[in-house]
Amino acid sequence: MNRPEELNTATHSELSQKLQDLSAPLMQQVIDAWIELKTQQPLVHIITNAVASNYVANVLLAAGASPAMIDNPFEAESFAGIASAISLNLGTPTSEQMQAMQIAAQTAQDLGKVWVLDPVGYGPILKWRSDMADALLQYHPAVIRGNASEIGALAGNQIQSKGVDSTISSESIYLQAQPLFEHAECIAISGESDFILCRSLNAVVQVNGGSDLQPKVTASGCALGALTAAYCAVSDSVAAGTVAAHIHFAIAGKKAHERANTAGSFNVAFIDEVYALNEEDLRQYTDFSILAL
Amino acid sequence: MNRPEELNTATHSELSQKLQDLSAPLMQQVIDAWIELKTQQPLVHIITNAVASNYVANVLLAAGASPAMIDNPFEAESFAGIASAISLNLGTPTSEQMQAMQIAAQTAQDLGKVWVLDPVGYGPILKWRSDMADALLQYHPAVIRGNASEIGALAGNQIQSKGVDSTISSESIYLQAQPLFEHAECIAISGESDFILCRSLNAVVQVNGGSDLQPKVTASGCALGALTAAYCAVSDSVAAGTVAAHIHFAIAGKKAHERANTAGSFNVAFIDEVYALNEEDLRQYTDFSILAL
Amino acid sequence: MNRPEELNTATHSELSQKLQDLSAPLMQQVIDAWIELKTQQPLVHIITNAVASNYVANVLLAAGASPAMIDNPFEAESFAGIASAISLNLGTPTSEQMQAMQIAAQTAQDLGKVWVLDPVGYGPILKWRSDMADALLQYHPAVIRGNASEIGALAGNQIQSKGVDSTISSESIYLQAQPLFEHAECIAISGESDFILCRSLNAVVQVNGGSDLQPKVTASGCALGALTAAYCAVSDSVAAGTVAAHIHFAIAGKKAHERANTAGSFNVAFIDEVYALNEEDLRQYTDFSILAL
Repeated sequence: MNRPEELNTATHSELSQKLQDLSAPLMQQVIDAWIELKTQQPLVHIITNAVASNYVANVLLAAGASPAMIDNPFEAESFAGIASAISLNLGTPTSEQMQAMQIAAQTAQDLGKVWVLDPVGYGPILKWRSDMADALLQYHPAVIRGNASEIGALAGNQIQSKGVDSTISSESIYLQAQPLFEHAECIAISGESDFILCRSLNAVVQVNGGSDLQPKVTASGCALGALTAAYCAVSDSVAAGTVAAHIHFAIAGKKAHERANTAGSFNVAFIDEVYALNEEDLRQYTDFSILAL
Repeated sequence: MNRPEELNTATHSELSQKLQDLSAPLMQQVIDAWIELKTQQPLVHIITNAVASNYVANVLLAAGASPAMIDNPFEAESFAGIASAISLNLGTPTSEQMQAMQIAAQTAQDLGKVWVLDPVGYGPILKWRSDMADALLQYHPAVIRGNASEIGALAGNQIQSKGVDSTISSESIYLQAQPLFEHAECIAISGESDFILCRSLNAVVQVNGGSDLQPKVTASGCALGALTAAYCAVSDSVAAGTVAAHIHFAIAGKKAHERANTAGSFNVAFIDEVYALNEEDLRQYTDFSILAL
Repeated sequence: MNRPEELNTATHSELSQKLQDLSAPLMQQVIDAWIELKTQQPLVHIITNAVASNYVANVLLAAGASPAMIDNPFEAESFAGIASAISLNLGTPTSEQMQAMQIAAQTAQDLGKVWVLDPVGYGPILKWRSDMADALLQYHPAVIRGNASEIGALAGNQIQSKGVDSTISSESIYLQAQPLFEHAECIAISGESDFILCRSLNAVVQVNGGSDLQPKVTASGCALGALTAAYCAVSDSVAAGTVAAHIHFAIAGKKAHERANTAGSFNVAFIDEVYALNEEDLRQYTDFSILAL
C-alpha cells in the first residue's frame, strides 16, 4: 500500500484501521451495484467519440446496461431527461456534439442526474476540447474519469500529453488531483492500477487487476467512463458505483488475459468476460485497497 | 401459428390453405435471392449511425454485398444514382446526414430504386429524427424496418420507447402496423421472432430463429436493415428480399449461438455464419410461417 | 516477375542485376523500420472515416504505433505539429473533417512531416471528395495509397469505380500511375498483390501475401494507409516505410488465414497477427520483388 507520508488528522494506526473498516461495506456495495445493474438495465445517454461508439455500446450491453448514443443538440435535452445517467466523452468532438454535450450536462445538473466527464486528450495541444471540458465543470459531473495525463492536466499541472494516451503513471498523479473535488465527487484515474479519489470517503480506492493488453484495445477508457455512469445510476453512492465499474473492468481484463494473450483475441475475450461476470467472480477476484488522501 | 380471430374474406380452412400454398414459392424465392446476392454483389448506398457503420459494412461484406457509406449531402444524389439499393438509418444523425438522407430518398424514388427506412429511436422523446422519418415517408421506402417500439410509434400508437431498444414484443404490435402500408410495401418488425408484413401477399411472414444474444450485440438491427436493402436489389419482389434477409440473419444467429454463448464470441461467430451460409443451411434451417393479416 | 517490355536505359541483364541488388538492403530497412516502430511508438495523427476509425486505431495499437484521431478544424494544426506523421482518408468526410484535412496537410508540408493520402472512392461519381483529393495534392503527400480504381482515376484515367471497392486489378494499373510522382514519393496500390511505385528507387516493389478474406473485412485499406504513415515516421526512407507497412499487412493476413477461414474469425486473427509479428516472421515470410518502371 502506498500512503502519503503526512497523515493530518489521526495517528497512523487509527487512520489505517478506519480505512480498513470501509473495505467490507464497500465490497458489499459493489456487489449490490452489480446486481442492480443486471436488474434495472439503466438507460445511459452517451455522447462519445467515433472511434469508441461501437465498442462502448457493446461493452455496456454485455455488462447489462442499456446504452443509447444521442449526440445531436436537438434531442440532447429530452433524452437526458429520460436517461438514468449521462456519459460525456471528448474524444473526437464535432461542433454539433459539443452543443449536445453542454445541453446534456446542464440538463443533468438541473434534474439532479449523475453524469460522467471523460476529458479525452485534455491538455494545451488540444485547446478546443480542453476549453469545453473546463466549461462543462460548471455543471458538476459526479465523476471525472481519465488517464493520468488528462487528469493531471485538468487538475492544473503542466503536463505534455502525447496524443490521447498517458505518458505518466496513475499512481504518480493521484495526490495532485484533489483540487478537482471542487467540481466532482469522484476522480477516477486509469492506469496499471486505477486510483479513484472519493470526496465522501476522503480516501482513494486503488483497484488492481486488468491486463497489460488493455491499452492495446482502443476505447477501453471510453467504455469504462460510460460503464461508470451506468453503475452510478443504480448504486447507493457515486463512490460505490465508480469503484464497481472499475472492478468489473479489472476482473474482466484479468480473466480475459488468462485465455487470450494477443490483441485481437483479448478484445473479444474481454467482452465475453464483461458479459460473464458473476457474483462469485466478484467475491474471488476483487482486489482493492483504500488509501488515505 | 398465431392467427387473428377474425378472418374477413374466406373461411378458416380456405385461407389456411391459401397461405400454405405461398410457402414453397417463397422458400424458392429466398434461395434464388441468396444466389443472386452472391452473384451480383449489389452496391448498397448506406447512411447509418456512428455506432453501426463498421459492423454494418462487415455484415454486408460477409453476406456478399458491396456496402458503401456515402453520407454527405454533396455526393448523395450521384451515388444513389449508381447504387442498386439504398439504406437509410436514423441512429445518430448529424445535420449533414439528415440532408443526405433526404436527397438519397428522393433520388431513389425518382429513379425507382428500392430503399429501406430504419427509424431508430422513433417516438416522442426523439423528435428531430422522428420528424425526419415522417418526412422521408413521402419518398415511399420499399421497406420500413425497426423494432416493435419504433414501428408501433411510427404507425401512430402511443408508445413510450426506452432509448433505442424495444420495450414491447414484435408479436404484440404487428397487427397495428398495417396503416404503414400506405407508405411501404413491407413492414419488418424485429424481435424474438421477426414479423414481416407484406402488402403484396396480404399476409405476415413470421421468421423464427436467431439468438437471445443478438440484442447483446449493438447494431444488429441496423445491419439487418442494410442487408434487407441488399437483398431487395437482387430479388424478384420486395417481400422475398425482405424475408430472405431476415432468414439469413435468423439462421446465422441460431448457428452462431450453437458455438458461442457469450457476447463477444457470439459477435464474431455471427459474422462467420453470415459469411458461411450456404444453400443447404437455407433448406435445413429456414423456419417461417405465413399468417393472415 | 512481371516486367514491362521496354527497358530504356540499360540492357535487360544489367537492369535485372541492379534491381536485384536493391533487395537485400530494402529487406534490412524493413526490419529496421519494424524495430523502430516498436521502440518509438510514433504518434500518428489520423483523420479517417466513420466506418474505419475503431479498426484503424486497433490495428495501429496492435502494430506498436500510437494513433490519435483528431479530426476537427480547431485542433488539427496544433496536433499535426506534435504528431510524427499524419494520415488523411477521404472515406466518409464531413465538412469539418474536410477543413481539418486541409489544415493538417498544410501543417505537415510546412513542418516537413510525412503524410499519407488515401483518396477513398476517388472518381467522377464522388466529386466532393475527389475535388478535395486534387486540392490536397498541392501539399505533397509522401505517399498516396489506394486501390487500383482510385489510383487509376487519380492518375487521370477514365475509370468507372464501383463504390469504394476496386473493379480493376492492381497489376493492370501500376504502369499508368507514374504521373502521380509529380505529387508524391510513393504510390501504393493495394490488391491481390500490392504494387508500390517508388520515385527514389525508380522501381516498383511488388509485395505478395495477404489473404482473399482481406476484402471481406471493411477498412483494411484504411488501416494500411495509417500504418504506412506510422512506418514512414520511423524509417530511413519513405520507400522503406511504405514497403514495411505493406509487408506487415501481407504477413499478418497470410498467417491469419492459416488459422481462420471465415470473415469474423479472420478479422480477429488478423489483429492478433499484426500484434504478434516478429523479426523471424519478417525474415521467413516476406515476399517481394523489385520491378523496373
